Amino acid sequence: MGYKGFIFDIDGVLCRGDKPIPGAKETIAKLREAGIKIVFLSNLSTKSREEYVEKLHRLGIPAEPEDLVLATSAIADYVAKHCKSKKVYWVGARGLRKELEKAGLIVVEEPEEAEFVVAGSPFDEKGYVTEENRWKFTGALRAIKAGAKFVAVNPDPTFPGKDGKLLPGTGAFIGAVKAMTGVEPVIVGKPSPVIVQMALEKLGLKPDECVMVGDQIDTDMKAGKSAGLTTVLVLTGVTSREDLEKVDKSKLELVDYVFDSVNDVLKLI
Amino acid sequence: MGYKGFIFDIDGVLCRGDKPIPGAKETIAKLREAGIKIVFLSNLSTKSREEYVEKLHRLGIPAEPEDLVLATSAIADYVAKHCKSKKVYWVGARGLRKELEKAGLIVVEEPEEAEFVVAGSPFDEKGYVTEENRWKFTGALRAIKAGAKFVAVNPDPTFPGKDGKLLPGTGAFIGAVKAMTGVEPVIVGKPSPVIVQMALEKLGLKPDECVMVGDQIDTDMKAGKSAGLTTVLVLTGVTSREDLEKVDKSKLELVDYVFDSVNDVLKLI
Repeated sequence: MGYKGFIFDIDGVLCRGDKPIPGAKETIAKLREAGIKIVFLSNLSTKSREEYVEKLHRLGIPAEPEDLVLATSAIADYVAKHCKSKKVYWVGARGLRKELEKAGLIVVEEPEEAEFVVAGSPFDEKGYVTEENRWKFTGALRAIKAGAKFVAVNPDPTFPGKDGKLLPGTGAFIGAVKAMTGVEPVIVGKPSPVIVQMALEKLGLKPDECVMVGDQIDTDMKAGKSAGLTTVLVLTGVTSREDLEKVDKSKLELVDYVFDSVNDVLKLI
Repeated sequence: MGYKGFIFDIDGVLCRGDKPIPGAKETIAKLREAGIKIVFLSNLSTKSREEYVEKLHRLGIPAEPEDLVLATSAIADYVAKHCKSKKVYWVGARGLRKELEKAGLIVVEEPEEAEFVVAGSPFDEKGYVTEENRWKFTGALRAIKAGAKFVAVNPDPTFPGKDGKLLPGTGAFIGAVKAMTGVEPVIVGKPSPVIVQMALEKLGLKPDECVMVGDQIDTDMKAGKSAGLTTVLVLTGVTSREDLEKVDKSKLELVDYVFDSVNDVLKLI
């Protein structure tokens, strides 16, 4: 107890798609009234923070871009910190490019000029390689062969689309690059603890002062626990109570609390 | 000695790009006069046999489509033999599609209907994912998840383009599919012995009656030796005499004869 900060995953915790989880906005308001600091964290690799703030507003949750850590903004901040020349080769969606530029990085067209390859998914929401990404397999290959470091927003090879059918993700691109270069990327998004550490920096708090709330064991709980936070799994997203009964015991050790919904986190303050 | 059949790699053996190796056409003619059967074999995964016969004609070497085994035609024959429903999901160049259709296979658009995913490279000669292949990462993922078998023309992740800079190859696509599905393909082209076995079938000869002539140890010599043939490395292609001095001894065991050029194979008859 005595937690000073909460990090909330968004989809499956505060909403499901465009539908808010009942009570979520009131719970956030109560935490804020109690002086708790809050960061919203998503592995989303396609949108910028500005675009995502609108989503939170539609859910009735006031938020500023500074309250958000997205895989896009986190990777931009991470690279800005480590990239001396500021020159990066960009793979993925425009929201990622926007965040890279906002972090002061220069997106170069010539792969051999880049100090970092920053990769999101080159695929669109229907599973097509986007027009802008058609040459990026070649660009990433040449940049990395010329010595560029490789970072990626998340390791997910596939994920379910709106119709439930599988779509390729950033991990498919990573697999292609690994086959071509032998190089594996640094992952910034969940399940890597890097993105959680960046959220902690934003909160100005220590790991044991904070709680990570999410709906997925393999990403949210793993990232939160690896970074040293208390973890809360909510059952309003992809994980059901029946799923929990089937899960490996080693995975259950990543979860400190299981709550029916985000509203139960009020018990922790 | 007493060889009855020769299998010739083309580029680096009979020509370099569009330039013929001096004496090559006469050597082929002399072998034919001596009653030796000949097959031309290439790992090329973009052209059909008809298109490639023209190249041989330009080199002054008479050939019919039946004298050629390309990775495209070999994979088409291989799949036609093993695919009961005849339904395949195609990835790669149009020359591959042509060969699949000529082998009596049906190229389906719905991945879930396919019994085999047949993959060449989805990239064009400049390193772009071709327009037709933009959805193929998704299609291959869904086909394989629905139970389709996976075959690929060659395992090469990269190869040098005309300007000497690296381009992504079929192996990059294979890497993406492996990341998404965990499945590795059956490789039909070199260095797999499968393509050499198909050339032997065409010749109607046994492995110990035939010679494989090529310019690359890792592909030509490996495929030839794995299939049980006598192997000849020529030095008119990618391998120089200096390269040979640096090569692992275990690799040299794949090579039975080293000749300056294809013309020296006449010593073997």
